[in-house]
Amino acid sequence: MAIELSSILSRLQTLSTSDHASVVSMNLFVALLCACIVIGHLLEENRWVNESITALSIGVCTGVIILLFSGGKSSHLLVFSEDLFFIYLLPPIIFNAGFQVKKKQFFVNFITIVLFGAVGTLISCTIISLGVIQFFKKMDIGSLDIGDYLAIGAIFAATDSVCTLQVLNQDETPLLYSLVFGEGVVNDATSVVLFNAIQSFDLNHIDPRIALHFTGNFFYLFITSTMLGVLTGLFSAYIIKKLYFGRHSTDREVALMILMAYLSYMLAELFYLSGILTVFFCGIVMSHYTWHNVTESSRITTKHSFATLSFVAEIFIFLYVGMDALDIEKWRFASNSPGTSIAVSSILLALIMAGRAAFVFPLSFLINLVKKSPNEKISFRQQVIIWWAGLMRGAVSMALAYNQFTRAGHTQLRANAIMITSTTTVVLFSTVVFGLMTKPLIRFLLPHTKHTSSMTLSDSSTPKSVNAPLLGEGQDSEADLGDTNIPRPGSLRALLATPTHTVHRYWRKFDDAFMRPVFGGRGFVPYVPGSPTERSFLQGQ
Amino acid sequence: MAIELSSILSRLQTLSTSDHASVVSMNLFVALLCACIVIGHLLEENRWVNESITALSIGVCTGVIILLFSGGKSSHLLVFSEDLFFIYLLPPIIFNAGFQVKKKQFFVNFITIVLFGAVGTLISCTIISLGVIQFFKKMDIGSLDIGDYLAIGAIFAATDSVCTLQVLNQDETPLLYSLVFGEGVVNDATSVVLFNAIQSFDLNHIDPRIALHFTGNFFYLFITSTMLGVLTGLFSAYIIKKLYFGRHSTDREVALMILMAYLSYMLAELFYLSGILTVFFCGIVMSHYTWHNVTESSRITTKHSFATLSFVAEIFIFLYVGMDALDIEKWRFASNSPGTSIAVSSILLALIMAGRAAFVFPLSFLINLVKKSPNEKISFRQQVIIWWAGLMRGAVSMALAYNQFTRAGHTQLRANAIMITSTTTVVLFSTVVFGLMTKPLIRFLLPHTKHTSSMTLSDSSTPKSVNAPLLGEGQDSEADLGDTNIPRPGSLRALLATPTHTVHRYWRKFDDAFMRPVFGGRGFVPYVPGSPTERSFLQGQ
Repeated sequence: MAIELSSILSRLQTLSTSDHASVVSMNLFVALLCACIVIGHLLEENRWVNESITALSIGVCTGVIILLFSGGKSSHLLVFSEDLFFIYLLPPIIFNAGFQVKKKQFFVNFITIVLFGAVGTLISCTIISLGVIQFFKKMDIGSLDIGDYLAIGAIFAATDSVCTLQVLNQDETPLLYSLVFGEGVVNDATSVVLFNAIQSFDLNHIDPRIALHFTGNFFYLFITSTMLGVLTGLFSAYIIKKLYFGRHSTDREVALMILMAYLSYMLAELFYLSGILTVFFCGIVMSHYTWHNVTESSRITTKHSFATLSFVAEIFIFLYVGMDALDIEKWRFASNSPGTSIAVSSILLALIMAGRAAFVFPLSFLINLVKKSPNEKISFRQQVIIWWAGLMRGAVSMALAYNQFTRAGHTQLRANAIMITSTTTVVLFSTVVFGLMTKPLIRFLLPHTKHTSSMTLSDSSTPKSVNAPLLGEGQDSEADLGDTNIPRPGSLRALLATPTHTVHRYWRKFDDAFMRPVFGGRGFVPYVPGSPTERSFLQGQ
Repeated sequence: MAIELSSILSRLQTLSTSDHASVVSMNLFVALLCACIVIGHLLEENRWVNESITALSIGVCTGVIILLFSGGKSSHLLVFSEDLFFIYLLPPIIFNAGFQVKKKQFFVNFITIVLFGAVGTLISCTIISLGVIQFFKKMDIGSLDIGDYLAIGAIFAATDSVCTLQVLNQDETPLLYSLVFGEGVVNDATSVVLFNAIQSFDLNHIDPRIALHFTGNFFYLFITSTMLGVLTGLFSAYIIKKLYFGRHSTDREVALMILMAYLSYMLAELFYLSGILTVFFCGIVMSHYTWHNVTESSRITTKHSFATLSFVAEIFIFLYVGMDALDIEKWRFASNSPGTSIAVSSILLALIMAGRAAFVFPLSFLINLVKKSPNEKISFRQQVIIWWAGLMRGAVSMALAYNQFTRAGHTQLRANAIMITSTTTVVLFSTVVFGLMTKPLIRFLLPHTKHTSSMTLSDSSTPKSVNAPLLGEGQDSEADLGDTNIPRPGSLRALLATPTHTVHRYWRKFDDAFMRPVFGGRGFVPYVPGSPTERSFLQGQ
């Protein structure tokens, strides 16, 4: 944060009165965030609306009001910034997802997730690129070269894992959640890798050698990013276990956990790896080891802080995209030819649907061939939900589109302006329309899953496991890598309760024999109350 | 945050490889923050060093290393940014101070604090300005006008409340803590107001009317800023009590508290008020009302999150100042005349000491005249500590100096360069030398106060009251506005235990009869477990 901000010349002079407009904007923005939280709370029980749609709508409304107040001149309260998104907003969301994910579900479906996320994204990207080349060449859009077409494929192959977290519920549909969300994380990484490859490779000479290089590059990225995340997580566990910070202050533990998590992301960026993958695995490792090495207060604080950070970042993104949607400059070019703009957006939406269908159903078929027990197979209804829930496009697509089509200030070009406005349209439409229809669709296709009114969507960001260690052993979701394999009610739960995979048994043996004694973890940290705060807390019980 | 960052053109291109240097800087900076936390933890029991000095030293060392690596060309890893400081780092520190301050101590000494903070700062500023005019005119420094001299007075009248928090302990020396820290908050506000006044008023025509206008302006600022903070705090309490967010998710409560606190600061900036005062009083009100309206998990989370944020921001500032100290450009001018530079710094340090002595002892004498009981009087030894603990100059001075002497890129001027380097020298010297000697000085002058090894300095940022509500009524520090007036051991505690001020009795009646029923607060919120998380937590007990 320091480096970026400090290098700006006093832009927001709080002491002097020079830049009062940006103080106004900041006030407005923070107030809108508060409004989103309050309205989101009031609409909690509503079966259609979710927090993303609320934030998007408020963003668009504010954009309209600003547009009216400024006399149609600008809605430039905010401009979408790639940096802001990739450096400050995305890491907490993905880290929290890793921190709160049900680890067993995730690892049981690991192969499926990677298949969907990597191979699926490649298929989707290819189909979108080919379709775009087919359709756009016939239309009066402007000059787009082969690189642009391939980039469009990569841009629209990126599903929105943030939105997925909002529409699927970890507790109601654990299999679908882990599949779609896990796919989203891998898919984000794949899209970014693809996009970078498209921008850097010479695309006029495509031969098998380059394709091989590209594939190798992808696997290298995937493995090294994961390893980096795991290592950073383990390092944080080790250092907190050894130094035993709780003795003096829980704040040090909390600060160190947050900083180390952020460091993992930044290290990945340093080594040109996928920060998204790294921070996700860092979150998983931290929740498995580090989290058990800190004091009770720190556990409660970190769980809730990470969830809150992620929650605010999500709202921030949707508010941001909503407000940015009305940026007048981009629409000036597009408005000369509204027909073209609508056509482009519709074609893109159709291609997204086709591209996703082209890998979800065939890959599911392949996966079902391998699985023996009928309980393990992905039913057709579930396939439809997987297909549907991944149709939303979000901030990653926006960021990539801005990177591709506004480089060196080329927004003035007709083709670039049309692509930016179309991306905005696709993001808004898919988030609102597809997002609105996901909940009812799940209810319609899977009526068996339990729908308790208290277990509404945002609960996915306040997991049940927060205070679970207080319940004693064997009951909390932290333990789900090992012991509890008792089949529970609910058709989807039962799906995964039966197979006690051998890999997991070996992993657990290794975990108990070597990893936990070294890095700490549940049951391997001697209970010591720690900080003075802690002591008074325990006396109170 | 959005507005600032978004308006920058893709500076830190994480997707592309363009600005890899800033990723390196960011990694280094986060890693250094982690190192500061770890080293601070290891040096916890040390009686000389505190966290600020650790961070400063690490900062300076890193600066040296960068200087060596870059071949003496630059140490420009970081440039001190006023915005970063005033918009992101200072608010959490001051808010947390208000949130964790012992309210009774603060309000009992309210008159003394305001006298020290407002009148004292004026005296100090006058003496420093006069001294600077006297000495600097004889020296070969360069062109400084009357506005510059007065600004120097305001710059060096700003004591460092952040550093004070580090060297004084709320539990060991509650009176001194509340006096020095409270003074620091008021003093910061006074300095900023003074500084703005000096920059905006026409200083060639000083007449009584302008002086009156100035005084009126100060009181207006003080009262409106306080009111704004109180109102924002009450609003947050009301909305959280009415809407009962805990029903669905504790994250919303936490997010809303953080955002509302930040909003209070930004609102103050919007209305050209003192954000420092506003956010401080917002913190006090939030800890008195809002904090009692949220779920148990939210209470623990907010207490620790605020403390952690503040803790990280403090380390950040000192690391920052340490690294910035070696900025080669500024030293180039100063190095031509090392004698002048040292002379200027020494004169400034002497003036700071004289200026502070000129109000601490006379004002204490006046205050002692009013107090009847000998227990209430401020002893001479305590006066010495008050004088000494306020000698440190910190980030506010740096920020003001940058504002005055680098405007419109005038660092090239000899006088400006000398003033910036002298400010850096004064900040470093006062923080390290005065900071190092404060702890031993207190031990020497007040040997009666208890020194338990577990109650070391950073405990002031993890207050004992975090989980206190679990202990039941009447035992926690939240209750210190009302009931517990039992004299306790320790000469300083006893000082304040005796007088049960009438104002407080009236306030408490009003609080119980009107405020708490409306805005919530301890004992006035029906106990409801709230979110599902909460429920499992309570079942666990």
